[in-house]
Amino acid sequence: MHSPEPVKVGPWRRRSRDTAYSNPWIEVYHDEVDRPDGNPGIYGVVHFRSAAVAVVAADEVGRLLLVGQHRYSLDEYSWELPEGGVGEAESLLAGAQRELREETGYDAAAWRQLCRVSVSNSVTDERGAIFLATGLRPGEAAPDETEDLALRWATLDEVLDEIDRGEIHDLLTIAGVSRHAVELLRGPRRP
Amino acid sequence: MHSPEPVKVGPWRRRSRDTAYSNPWIEVYHDEVDRPDGNPGIYGVVHFRSAAVAVVAADEVGRLLLVGQHRYSLDEYSWELPEGGVGEAESLLAGAQRELREETGYDAAAWRQLCRVSVSNSVTDERGAIFLATGLRPGEAAPDETEDLALRWATLDEVLDEIDRGEIHDLLTIAGVSRHAVELLRGPRRP
Repeated sequence: MHSPEPVKVGPWRRRSRDTAYSNPWIEVYHDEVDRPDGNPGIYGVVHFRSAAVAVVAADEVGRLLLVGQHRYSLDEYSWELPEGGVGEAESLLAGAQRELREETGYDAAAWRQLCRVSVSNSVTDERGAIFLATGLRPGEAAPDETEDLALRWATLDEVLDEIDRGEIHDLLTIAGVSRHAVELLRGPRRP
Repeated sequence: MHSPEPVKVGPWRRRSRDTAYSNPWIEVYHDEVDRPDGNPGIYGVVHFRSAAVAVVAADEVGRLLLVGQHRYSLDEYSWELPEGGVGEAESLLAGAQRELREETGYDAAAWRQLCRVSVSNSVTDERGAIFLATGLRPGEAAPDETEDLALRWATLDEVLDEIDRGEIHDLLTIAGVSRHAVELLRGPRRP
């Protein structure tokens, strides 16, 4: 897709865009650009077809629900918040509720968005949100056929210590758990 | 690059890997795989040539240094921690020190790693770390020619409020600032 006229992107100008790769989850664009200093350059952008949601699911004594899986892209096992992708047909909240149910079997009585996020914005346009879910009720999990998931409960202190030791490294998990901990420690939000 | 034998990736098996796109910053692989359930599938992996580092740079009264720029991939202005990419020839700490100096002009007397991270591990292998820098000394910034950066100082409460309002959304920034806040609120790390 070559534009006849350059497209303004903040202080950048996009002179052309080609799709270099496409699959059901991502589309990779190769753009020819004029950089903020006016010189020509290129920019590869990874467009995500889904938004990312993560769920801090806390029980009545403050333990958090974690999901363990081998992450193919890292070739490493990773304990994380329940997370997943949400397509355009679904709201972020509905997607978070569905992912929690599919991955863990749990429903939650109360949901609140902790923050919106841009995940890796030097290269990708992946956006999403992190939610807090409380009032948990167990049910039956129904993970994707691509998922081989383990579940465990951990206290907030245990999760923070695993982050400090580098055992938990998923960035959505670090952000969500730390944001939740700040809220508990700092008290309710000021107006 | 087609492997004669499948490669084991945890519960996955990679049957082939082709490079679909490559530029100086990323390489995109298209893999044919057997999924954890044994059925065939595909996996697109975005390999990052650099690690990501972010720096929580705090002055003697606890204010944090933020960098503002228009993010091309999001087409949105974003206030963030000083961040950047670190190649294999450089340690994460040396890269964090260089990025802080280039983007803000500041050096720091004391550096400590807050956590290691995997940034967006459903699709990418981007890894990195977040550092705390204190004992700041001003100098002269030297940003990349692709960067058009603004600087400002904000209190920890101001940054947390901007995260709550969705004005700050960069995930490395949310994780680093929240992790730093937890440490301040919870007191020193236990052994």
